[in-house]
Amino acid sequence: MENFIFKNETKIIFGKGTENTVGKEILKYGKKVMFHYGGGSIKKSGLYEKIMKSLNESGLTVFELGGVKPNPLLGLVREGIKICRENDIDFILSAGGGSVIDSAKTIAMGVNYEGDIWDFFEGRAKLESAIPTGVILTIPAAGSESSVVTVITNEEGLIKRGFHSSMLLPKFAILNPELTFTLPVFQIACGAADILAHTFERYFTQSKNVDLTDRMCEGLMKSVIFNSKIAINSKDNYDAMAELMWASTIAHNGILGTGRTEDWASHKFGHELSALYGITHGASLAVMFPAWMKYVYKYNIERFAQFAVRVFNIDADFNDKERLALAGIKELENFFKEIGLPTTLKELSVPSDNFELMASKAVVRGTIGNFVKINKEDAVKIFELAK
Amino acid sequence: MENFIFKNETKIIFGKGTENTVGKEILKYGKKVMFHYGGGSIKKSGLYEKIMKSLNESGLTVFELGGVKPNPLLGLVREGIKICRENDIDFILSAGGGSVIDSAKTIAMGVNYEGDIWDFFEGRAKLESAIPTGVILTIPAAGSESSVVTVITNEEGLIKRGFHSSMLLPKFAILNPELTFTLPVFQIACGAADILAHTFERYFTQSKNVDLTDRMCEGLMKSVIFNSKIAINSKDNYDAMAELMWASTIAHNGILGTGRTEDWASHKFGHELSALYGITHGASLAVMFPAWMKYVYKYNIERFAQFAVRVFNIDADFNDKERLALAGIKELENFFKEIGLPTTLKELSVPSDNFELMASKAVVRGTIGNFVKINKEDAVKIFELAK
Repeated sequence: MENFIFKNETKIIFGKGTENTVGKEILKYGKKVMFHYGGGSIKKSGLYEKIMKSLNESGLTVFELGGVKPNPLLGLVREGIKICRENDIDFILSAGGGSVIDSAKTIAMGVNYEGDIWDFFEGRAKLESAIPTGVILTIPAAGSESSVVTVITNEEGLIKRGFHSSMLLPKFAILNPELTFTLPVFQIACGAADILAHTFERYFTQSKNVDLTDRMCEGLMKSVIFNSKIAINSKDNYDAMAELMWASTIAHNGILGTGRTEDWASHKFGHELSALYGITHGASLAVMFPAWMKYVYKYNIERFAQFAVRVFNIDADFNDKERLALAGIKELENFFKEIGLPTTLKELSVPSDNFELMASKAVVRGTIGNFVKINKEDAVKIFELAK
Repeated sequence: MENFIFKNETKIIFGKGTENTVGKEILKYGKKVMFHYGGGSIKKSGLYEKIMKSLNESGLTVFELGGVKPNPLLGLVREGIKICRENDIDFILSAGGGSVIDSAKTIAMGVNYEGDIWDFFEGRAKLESAIPTGVILTIPAAGSESSVVTVITNEEGLIKRGFHSSMLLPKFAILNPELTFTLPVFQIACGAADILAHTFERYFTQSKNVDLTDRMCEGLMKSVIFNSKIAINSKDNYDAMAELMWASTIAHNGILGTGRTEDWASHKFGHELSALYGITHGASLAVMFPAWMKYVYKYNIERFAQFAVRVFNIDADFNDKERLALAGIKELENFFKEIGLPTTLKELSVPSDNFELMASKAVVRGTIGNFVKINKEDAVKIFELAK
């Protein structure tokens, strides 16, 4: 186990009706709130009115900024920063999934920074402060509700890039599984892939002696696989959605990565697909993770064998670890197919024309990943494996 | 899954050499520190000097209070409160295991309270504030390093009782597995029993739809069982002790109890044994938990069958769940025996004379436990099963 520091201060408020406490929670941080959200779904579902009621009852002054799109854009972030500065906003509330939360986090970073917000994503600036944020989660997926990370797409050049700082940790995250009942089945499946992907990025490591967190990762993966099948087959299943929602947070709150070196190459590939073709994040991961696995499994075949045996209950055959490793990857693909996700670029209508371009962009700041250091040539081969 | 709120702010600083950062961590909270510890073990091991060096280098003024005994006593707590008040202490640092940490937490509760500190443990007072505490852990067991709980023994009447408040959460916990290398094998085994017991108190619940936390509990139990066998058989095994140390924290930081009603009857039985006979906490749990299990398993035989199958890999036989349930309890007893722990009161030289007295004391404030509500009559029967 490697030395580590772990701290996560986000207050999780979980369960039925919890969204009605949001005004009271925000009052601890100030009186002027920017309410940030996506398209019309929270208005259609009635969540918008519930939130406004709670904010008004707490006597908060509310400024609204809707319109966040999946793979959230820098343009709207800049608009949000302007609104916050002009109105002396104390707190940003986001209601939605990872895109809305990340957009809110990035606005929070920019309010007190005099330069251009993209500087942080280019490694040209160090974050000194961010205004506080809080979340009402509607999609179990990104884990951004209790993570130190934000991912933003810069329209100029179609660059999707992440930034992390403990200052980005939301003060609270309200998780009511009922708020997910309006989600299309495809979104639930994409969310499950995203939760699993966050766990894979930590699980597939060359760090030794990480038994406890291995087993906790495996337990979480099993639970996500089990409950996502239930969730996509029975509409409005509170219990299954509750498991997915809590799993989305735990998969990305940092605890499963303690004591180990994480990977994160596959996320980079997914980001390139989203930036260039607008692919839904979870779908991009369902395609790229199996491809990455096929390319790297030989570099620690024991770990992939363990994955197959412990997560997919494949009989442990110590005489043929390669068979085991490949069987585990196959089971993962089968699972993605079963819940209606693509596992090839073909299904996403992504041609091979831009493999070189995407590979170049993925490694623009050097090799990516830690399980295996991936360079441009490797990246092209991984895109080939995903065809 | 039940509605819940989860927040845990303790900063975990894990790994080799981390004790040398303690002065720097405390500086964030003030200049005057009370350094609280047990007997001579931290002096023999050299830890005392390392800590003093770090505190001095950070320019802190240090007041010392040693002498904490296992099952920490109210008398020393009162002395600590006096020292803190007279010297205007900003911060209490504890170096040791659960007893030292709980003693420090209780002192921290008393500094600003004008009445008698025992009021809190009798339910006669509400905690309004506590001064900040931090921990250097030397025994993976109690989980107090990142928990909201303290347990203290009142010498008058031999009453061992707990209190909990989020204000008791330590600001930081320094976990260096090397600091456990001086522990006797029996203490390591007692620690493993304590970690498992904290997980059992959460795992054995009547709450439905707790799949994710079930699987995380099961993963943690497997890891503790696996690594404690290694730790007691190979002295100074950093890797195994690291797993136990991180498990001790996770088992009691609250995350495994989210969404479910916890039990805590067995801990009450253990406390009565410790109060009356001075039994080591972990050893009392190794005896009382299997006895409690034998008394209650029929009230949710499916949960005990799941425990047997998932934690001890016993073949799932759906035609005879009772056999499975009992086989799981038997495996637990076998495990405790294998690591050198007692599983009967006889081995602890505890006679049956005081079963009535201990049962009365355990239920003095009403029935205990939630898996099954235990009254005095039940409690006597559970002590009988432990003979």
